[in-house]
Amino acid sequence: MRAVADSDQRWIPWMRRALQLAALADGHTSPNPLVGAVVLDPSGALVGEGFHARAGEPHAEVGALAQAGERAKGGTLVVTLEPCCHHGRTPPCSDAVIQAGIARVVVALTDPDPRVAGGGLQRLRDAGVEVLSGVLEADAAHQNRVFVHRVQTGRPWGLLKWAMSLDGRTALPSGASQWISGPAARAWVHRLRAQCDAVIVGGGTVRADDPLLTSRGLRQPEPLRVVLSRSLDLPDQAQLWDQSVAPTLVAHGVASDGADSERAQRLDALGVAGVTLTALQHCEPQQLLEVLAGRGCNRVLWECGPALAAAALQQGCVQELAVVVAPKLIGGAAACTPLGELGFTAMDQVISLQQIRHSSLAEDWLLQALLPTDR
Amino acid sequence: MRAVADSDQRWIPWMRRALQLAALADGHTSPNPLVGAVVLDPSGALVGEGFHARAGEPHAEVGALAQAGERAKGGTLVVTLEPCCHHGRTPPCSDAVIQAGIARVVVALTDPDPRVAGGGLQRLRDAGVEVLSGVLEADAAHQNRVFVHRVQTGRPWGLLKWAMSLDGRTALPSGASQWISGPAARAWVHRLRAQCDAVIVGGGTVRADDPLLTSRGLRQPEPLRVVLSRSLDLPDQAQLWDQSVAPTLVAHGVASDGADSERAQRLDALGVAGVTLTALQHCEPQQLLEVLAGRGCNRVLWECGPALAAAALQQGCVQELAVVVAPKLIGGAAACTPLGELGFTAMDQVISLQQIRHSSLAEDWLLQALLPTDR
Repeated sequence: MRAVADSDQRWIPWMRRALQLAALADGHTSPNPLVGAVVLDPSGALVGEGFHARAGEPHAEVGALAQAGERAKGGTLVVTLEPCCHHGRTPPCSDAVIQAGIARVVVALTDPDPRVAGGGLQRLRDAGVEVLSGVLEADAAHQNRVFVHRVQTGRPWGLLKWAMSLDGRTALPSGASQWISGPAARAWVHRLRAQCDAVIVGGGTVRADDPLLTSRGLRQPEPLRVVLSRSLDLPDQAQLWDQSVAPTLVAHGVASDGADSERAQRLDALGVAGVTLTALQHCEPQQLLEVLAGRGCNRVLWECGPALAAAALQQGCVQELAVVVAPKLIGGAAACTPLGELGFTAMDQVISLQQIRHSSLAEDWLLQALLPTDR
Repeated sequence: MRAVADSDQRWIPWMRRALQLAALADGHTSPNPLVGAVVLDPSGALVGEGFHARAGEPHAEVGALAQAGERAKGGTLVVTLEPCCHHGRTPPCSDAVIQAGIARVVVALTDPDPRVAGGGLQRLRDAGVEVLSGVLEADAAHQNRVFVHRVQTGRPWGLLKWAMSLDGRTALPSGASQWISGPAARAWVHRLRAQCDAVIVGGGTVRADDPLLTSRGLRQPEPLRVVLSRSLDLPDQAQLWDQSVAPTLVAHGVASDGADSERAQRLDALGVAGVTLTALQHCEPQQLLEVLAGRGCNRVLWECGPALAAAALQQGCVQELAVVVAPKLIGGAAACTPLGELGFTAMDQVISLQQIRHSSLAEDWLLQALLPTDR
């Protein structure tokens, strides 16, 4: 990260405002990043503001420049992410900036998208625009960590969430788990889903809980509901098969043994219901996430059982953790626990979480943390 | 609880002071209660303060009256617990109060000890002393909840403590558990032990962890270390057998099958080491606690494995819970969890904790709660 010269400190309040604008669309811009922008006239007065609301709609710079109109001429554009230089669903923003007669562009973060990656800034410089980058770079990188992760790895940012009792149980020995957490925590989960592009469960969760997995209308359209099921051992009736509520994708393994009539019947029935079917050569979390990245997902929520959660962790498919702890004791030798086998044999191997935050959800606690990046 | 008349509100600040004095000896007065007292002269000026420091030392009232001397005559004694009327290790306090010429006694809580139970107040009234009781009664009952519980049930107050990872594991599948929590949490456990009269583990914990179970000198003498082992399947070498550090009691089942030479050898070896041996007809938590109450324990700490913890909970031997949660993920299908089978078959049967408090111990969290009293 570059140090910003003292003379450039004056842009920091404006960049904060641009970051605030960008945050207004948090969770809704996939596969695009969050971007906010402000335009100042030559005297330094605010003349335009904009943010990227969702894919297909104008980029932040374009909105801010349109608001500024003629007053942008000779002025400054302060923007959280490098203006793009490629034609996507909208024309390159760097061209729009040049055409508006902007004299100076102040940027927080260089776009990690290989189609941009500094090319936007170069195009501006070539056109004689003064360019300053790296202002509040760390804040901007944090705000767009989900997008940056997807661009750099080719997989969406994974958030693993579970609810458990204070003795670490996610269900009774019978499988009953409704409800461990209280109404406030369950409402919080709906808000969490609204910030994600897909919600993933395994076949076991569909069989045990028959979940709905929606944001209850908080996000329109609803996040994609995803079932990862190698065997396709899934119930005939399930809330997830009702495509009028939200779309569902079932990712399954390829049949290794040729004809399997039950499996074929299941695929037929799901197809008739309108469920999207995707065969994975390796029916594993990592490959599923590559498919979801290809479908424009920046951030996915793992709401799965212990075995799939452990596999997702082991395959680097989890970057963030959210655990709801209910003040209850459930017990049970055979009762469910949040995570299956991780293969650790000594205490110095276990996963140490980072940047831990805790808060209350009425009677329950919410603990949020990041997974270490060197795993 | 009685309402205190408006005219008696003036005693509340003095009762708060008496409660503060009583708290100075928290965890050190067993089998006696916590008691604090202040003496005011006839003009209402403070002339004496006292608290009960430990069993065998003067009661709070006696200390405060001694400090007040002649100035107590015609004055007021404000005391957190009803003055006793029986000869214990010290003479009855009610007599001392009368002899000192006190005109008025203000009490928070009536002594639940059946040897007192209002008799102390009656004795004072019979001698012409004005008696007012019930001032800050709820605070006093909370402060002495451990003593009140022991007197009412014949068993010490039980505190169950465990440390676990965020995925609810108390050990690796291998049994390794040192250390799940950090240094601050481990130091807190030493302070917790210093507030308890005994620390209880099962044979499995002795075999797996070889714990020391002391307060590391914070309490003198150290709390009694207790092993509940039906089978006496215990290691030959263990830190608990070193009686120079702290005393140890091993409670074991009675041999049902007559001669058992291994068992006899084990008993001999423990006896030679100076360990106290106690045979229990029913080798269960409830009976162990009756034995410990008889040995003067007001509060005991359960630091045991999942099976014994579940048994202690089921037998009503746990009134309070303290859970340290470390920001780590351990996983493991066979890894240890805090509690064994509690026999619940539906979510509305599980234990809901009460009066929950949470705090931080450096990187770890501490969650404390009470068990519901109607269990």
